[in-house]
Amino acid sequence: MEAKRLILALFLLFLLSKSSAFPSRKSRVHKPCKRLVFYFHDIIYNGKNSGNATAAIVGAPAWGNKTILANQNHFGDLVVFDDPITLDNNLHSAPVGRAQGIYVYDKKEIFTAWLGFSFVFNSTEHKGSINFAGADPLMNKTRDVSVIGGTGDFFMARGIATLMTDAFEGEVYFRLRVDIQLYECW
Amino acid sequence: MEAKRLILALFLLFLLSKSSAFPSRKSRVHKPCKRLVFYFHDIIYNGKNSGNATAAIVGAPAWGNKTILANQNHFGDLVVFDDPITLDNNLHSAPVGRAQGIYVYDKKEIFTAWLGFSFVFNSTEHKGSINFAGADPLMNKTRDVSVIGGTGDFFMARGIATLMTDAFEGEVYFRLRVDIQLYECW
Amino acid sequence: MEAKRLILALFLLFLLSKSSAFPSRKSRVHKPCKRLVFYFHDIIYNGKNSGNATAAIVGAPAWGNKTILANQNHFGDLVVFDDPITLDNNLHSAPVGRAQGIYVYDKKEIFTAWLGFSFVFNSTEHKGSINFAGADPLMNKTRDVSVIGGTGDFFMARGIATLMTDAFEGEVYFRLRVDIQLYECW
Repeated sequence: MEAKRLILALFLLFLLSKSSAFPSRKSRVHKPCKRLVFYFHDIIYNGKNSGNATAAIVGAPAWGNKTILANQNHFGDLVVFDDPITLDNNLHSAPVGRAQGIYVYDKKEIFTAWLGFSFVFNSTEHKGSINFAGADPLMNKTRDVSVIGGTGDFFMARGIATLMTDAFEGEVYFRLRVDIQLYECW
Repeated sequence: MEAKRLILALFLLFLLSKSSAFPSRKSRVHKPCKRLVFYFHDIIYNGKNSGNATAAIVGAPAWGNKTILANQNHFGDLVVFDDPITLDNNLHSAPVGRAQGIYVYDKKEIFTAWLGFSFVFNSTEHKGSINFAGADPLMNKTRDVSVIGGTGDFFMARGIATLMTDAFEGEVYFRLRVDIQLYECW
Repeated sequence: MEAKRLILALFLLFLLSKSSAFPSRKSRVHKPCKRLVFYFHDIIYNGKNSGNATAAIVGAPAWGNKTILANQNHFGDLVVFDDPITLDNNLHSAPVGRAQGIYVYDKKEIFTAWLGFSFVFNSTEHKGSINFAGADPLMNKTRDVSVIGGTGDFFMARGIATLMTDAFEGEVYFRLRVDIQLYECW
């Protein structure tokens, strides 16, 4: 009887350890260990808005220039940005961090971009950074890029971020909604 | 006897769970959980081939320009690309996806590049993206870059990709063979 | 008695496997599985130092050029580099590898950069590469970027790297101390 009770206890311990120590790692339905939603706002320099521009064309193809996005769906334009991050979709809300990095328009036929950037936080709420990379076929309603790492509060983070264009005004302003789903949290 | 049978069953279950749930994670001989081989084709814009160019110089050093790759092993040339991906080494095969991103030639003495790019798939075969980054010392027969993330069918992928220059024609066309070995599959 | 001994052995095996197979993965206090400290040296091309420059401006905003870092804290300057890596802080020490990739200055108000680069080693000591990405708010004494992957000796590495500006001479030379802490080692 004692042996059986021991076996049972051991078996329960075994089951428990499987289910709790590695919660979502190999399960088929993946649940994020952390989820965060932000907006960021990109105002591109067009030669006249140096006061409030947050981004600038710094690389352009032979047929382009640095103050007007190139034709052929801006193919070849490389943009550096330092954009405010807000909690809601209002450009004038208090920024909670900065989105910093580069994007390039990389297709002649339709609008598509490639992004390498970071979210940088230094507030009471969040300290640290989240790093992203990936393709942004921006004519799709939503598209996923990778969370490739993190520091500080986001130490060793991995996951995906679902981008959605929340506003697009002429060729000067756009706003992206970023739904960050981390699947590795340390 | 019953107790012994229970113990045996438990022990087998235990072994099974160890070997199957975390297959190659910490073993010394690493075996990819997924392997894929593709080719991609890069035709760089040279001022005369706008019809079929898939890439363009968008950044160049002080001594360079946007239609001729710079001297000193193209040091400083930054190229944006949207290249077709094929299953074999034929440029005219039906593309199964697009390779999109940037590369920079980053050494004066020999040809070497740094790459940040994505494979984007949207077919019945594969949906999603694989994201890559790394150094490409392209005079070596093979060289490895990192798979830093993935989305869709390649959700949370990590691994390496072995690049091989499969063809190199003048300064306009090259073809890379990409042998993707994923070691983290979700 | 035999059954009890079996149970005990099984239990010990179980504990052992839990504690050794996944050492630091989910523990609260993270200890690097590998730590490496290097220095790298960046000499930017200014129109007169082509002999020993290791980096060049290849993208610049509308108000910038390729031989002088732009005003407004160099916002928009994109630099390609192939910098020597040394074990100590002496530029003239024998290089143990090369730091290759890009950085962009991405803020108008203060010095801040975004980095995508690799450490490339090919010596008896180390063979392979370590890939990095992240924000570099370079006015901070130390700042962390992500190790997003590795190849060769650094196969599948992940972690963080703490950057520290070890020297900064005018607008031509800087030296970074890089303290690499890997938390995933294969």
